[in-house]
Amino acid sequence: MVVQYDGTDFAGWQIQPGRPTIQGRLTEVLGRIDGGPVTIDGSGRTDAGVHALGQVASSHTDKPMALDELQRALNGHLPAAIRVMQLEEVEERFHARRNARLKHYRYQIFLGAVVSPFIHRYVWHSPRPLDLAGMNEGARLLTGEHDFASFACGAERAGSTIRRIESAHWSVEGELVSFTIAGDGFLRSMVRRLSSGLYALGRGKLELRDFADLLDRPRPNNLTPSLPARGLTLMKVDY
Amino acid sequence: MVVQYDGTDFAGWQIQPGRPTIQGRLTEVLGRIDGGPVTIDGSGRTDAGVHALGQVASSHTDKPMALDELQRALNGHLPAAIRVMQLEEVEERFHARRNARLKHYRYQIFLGAVVSPFIHRYVWHSPRPLDLAGMNEGARLLTGEHDFASFACGAERAGSTIRRIESAHWSVEGELVSFTIAGDGFLRSMVRRLSSGLYALGRGKLELRDFADLLDRPRPNNLTPSLPARGLTLMKVDY
Repeated sequence: MVVQYDGTDFAGWQIQPGRPTIQGRLTEVLGRIDGGPVTIDGSGRTDAGVHALGQVASSHTDKPMALDELQRALNGHLPAAIRVMQLEEVEERFHARRNARLKHYRYQIFLGAVVSPFIHRYVWHSPRPLDLAGMNEGARLLTGEHDFASFACGAERAGSTIRRIESAHWSVEGELVSFTIAGDGFLRSMVRRLSSGLYALGRGKLELRDFADLLDRPRPNNLTPSLPARGLTLMKVDY
Repeated sequence: MVVQYDGTDFAGWQIQPGRPTIQGRLTEVLGRIDGGPVTIDGSGRTDAGVHALGQVASSHTDKPMALDELQRALNGHLPAAIRVMQLEEVEERFHARRNARLKHYRYQIFLGAVVSPFIHRYVWHSPRPLDLAGMNEGARLLTGEHDFASFACGAERAGSTIRRIESAHWSVEGELVSFTIAGDGFLRSMVRRLSSGLYALGRGKLELRDFADLLDRPRPNNLTPSLPARGLTLMKVDY
């Protein structure tokens, strides 16, 4: 299933007892339709407040049910802030996380003086001039395979911090500046920490060589700051 | 001031004791800044749940204060769902309602199967085929001066129900159908009742000649139905 959500009022994707999460709501609703406990696997977690235009999740059911009927039933019981946009039958061994090939994220910064009520949930507001060209010089350094330990939140006690980035780019449309990045996977809060580092470049608070150094000589405990969750959206996942 | 608001969580524009309204919040916040009771006049009321991209309001203050400072103070105290987008000094006799020349409204209907969480507050969902050409035939009948008593909600006990419509048109973009209408003024819920009548045309539930008849022979007590508030937005006001 392809899932969209406005993450503002949720404690993130991952199921947590007693807290509103996307995976929690989906599991509860699918379980009710299926008539028994179900497991839903997402392509990956998104943090509290992060949005999705194209999160992908997979599950297994033995219950024979037409796909459009199941989709209607799911959306009929889910809050309006979570929507199953597409539903497809896949082969038994498909797994939304393990088979994910490429994930696309977007981070939005609004530069204008006043944030419209119609976008304020989806942007971080920073009404200060930014050197986009400098930020794109930094973004270009990200492509290829790197150890992103400097941009991890420290939660990865074990496991590799090496990831492959396929593309990373800042663009501007009016007063809205967007960072789009695609890669085979991301460490927890990595996109927001990379955005933060590149934002520091754009504000002249960090030199390009120092940003490059964070990539070339990864420092796991050098906790880089992170930008707020509201600006981040998981755009799509390729398989 | 030009004001934007997401009307979802408000009981409309007009101040009402004990209920969250746009005028109420603005009056409260401006009064706190001004240090005394203030009056805020809007270009017109919007109903509960109706949004605005360009509501205009005027007020008077004797307190000398830089406009950008005042705007920052207002936005600093208002909820994020209400924003003062522009602030201008006007001549003493200016009045947001009395001087309004033309108001522009938009009504949005979403035709797709599933409403994205990112637009669900701003559209009415009706996943049924619509005859847009037929709806535009009806819309064309609206321009010029007419007695819109058939499209009033019955609240106008006194006063004229004659209004002049400058333009009215349906357009489509993907699965989103929008009705834009501009006129010198609108009766309460008139745009939603006109949208409803034209929607009935588009669904083949009403004949063009019957729609025309509602305009030609106004029937004040012939309460036409109204479409839900969520799809309606006050786009701008011309002076």
